[in-house]
Amino acid sequence: MRNIKLIIQYDGSRYSGWQRRPGDERTIQYKLENVISRMLDTNIEIIGAGRTDRGVHAMMQTANFHIPESAVTFTCGEMLEYINAHLPSDIAVISVSEADERFHARFNCISKTYVYRIDNRRVQDVFQSRFRTHIQEKLDVAAMKKAIKYFEGEHDFTSFTSLKSKNKSAVRTIYSAEIDYMEEDSFIDIRFCGNGFLYNMVRIISGTLIEIGLHKREVEGVPGIFSAKERAVAGYTAPPEGLVLEKTEY
Amino acid sequence: MRNIKLIIQYDGSRYSGWQRRPGDERTIQYKLENVISRMLDTNIEIIGAGRTDRGVHAMMQTANFHIPESAVTFTCGEMLEYINAHLPSDIAVISVSEADERFHARFNCISKTYVYRIDNRRVQDVFQSRFRTHIQEKLDVAAMKKAIKYFEGEHDFTSFTSLKSKNKSAVRTIYSAEIDYMEEDSFIDIRFCGNGFLYNMVRIISGTLIEIGLHKREVEGVPGIFSAKERAVAGYTAPPEGLVLEKTEY
Repeated sequence: MRNIKLIIQYDGSRYSGWQRRPGDERTIQYKLENVISRMLDTNIEIIGAGRTDRGVHAMMQTANFHIPESAVTFTCGEMLEYINAHLPSDIAVISVSEADERFHARFNCISKTYVYRIDNRRVQDVFQSRFRTHIQEKLDVAAMKKAIKYFEGEHDFTSFTSLKSKNKSAVRTIYSAEIDYMEEDSFIDIRFCGNGFLYNMVRIISGTLIEIGLHKREVEGVPGIFSAKERAVAGYTAPPEGLVLEKTEY
Repeated sequence: MRNIKLIIQYDGSRYSGWQRRPGDERTIQYKLENVISRMLDTNIEIIGAGRTDRGVHAMMQTANFHIPESAVTFTCGEMLEYINAHLPSDIAVISVSEADERFHARFNCISKTYVYRIDNRRVQDVFQSRFRTHIQEKLDVAAMKKAIKYFEGEHDFTSFTSLKSKNKSAVRTIYSAEIDYMEEDSFIDIRFCGNGFLYNMVRIISGTLIEIGLHKREVEGVPGIFSAKERAVAGYTAPPEGLVLEKTEY
């Protein structure tokens, strides 16, 4: 078997998320599988590194799929051309390569970086409206920078996910959590690199940080949110358009 | 009468252009007039500096409208808030100010700058697909840079417009015409500053330059296109998504 690795970018605005599900043709996975299956004339299932939600974007999603050696003579370059020629303009495969037989896009992923992007101008930048969440009221970035430090390291993120499972651990490690403030543009990037992320975790942490930036909650309240292990005590779920899967590492 | 000046930005992707026309609610002018007329409870007509076409964007469109002194107590700041709160997220008014009684957004405009933006990557940048025209084949930027110099100065642009009028002059002056090549991103910006532009003029000049960049025509062929005074001898009309009205000056 050949094991093919893809690096994918998408503007998630028009899609209901990465993951394929019955009766929904508006998923990224479906769009890719559909094109690749037609190209190879056989049903292909692809494995993605991260399951981005409805409306969430990716600058670097990684995926892989297997094809029988005998069946296919396409080179990686030919696959890249074919796939992009048949995908809509808001999804693109930027790299196709041969991977080791055992390579698995989800299990082998050692870290992912998500960025939550905010437009903090008084008047929204119309060219960024699909990619940044507009917060009109001036955010206290210094307070947000203090608060984000509480999220680094290994924690139980039960309070920061909207899907609870009694059997599964909510312990994850955030290797780095940083805020980049582009003062001239009034843009704020909240960036998390970690070994894994729970459902809605980045959006709930970002919503909590936004509430801190709006002085609706205290910087010092963050440890209490962790210890409560209760979704309701954390901040709101920031909207999906600001979220981007920026990097997947192996 | 108060004369109110607006500076407007829009992502033109979803619109049929700037100019209002009967039965079409998908024009930028209609959207603005509709919101402003509701705000002031009277029918308002606005005057725009430039009539951008279907799908064309603006980073700085200027417009003005008159309102009876007596009827209105809104400050400029209040109008800015109201208008933006009621516009869709792809149109924004970034400035509202009081103008001299005689200020006219179209007649007083001394220069406009249009940029035609190209994504010259092998695989399209999905986040720029609404704002840059994707040309997959590598363009010869050096040839385009030579060719663009022919467009500077005063010329009869009859060959570079798709709407001919026997009675109106096609003579326009281009103050500067430049190509900015962002090598790292494979992005190319073709920028024209001039005293006026004919219908489709920037898109036909850009299409001609793209054909030169693809070696489908010669740099030295440009003077012959001017002298032919015939639309058919110029290049194709490059698609609207790459075009932006960048600046309007008074």
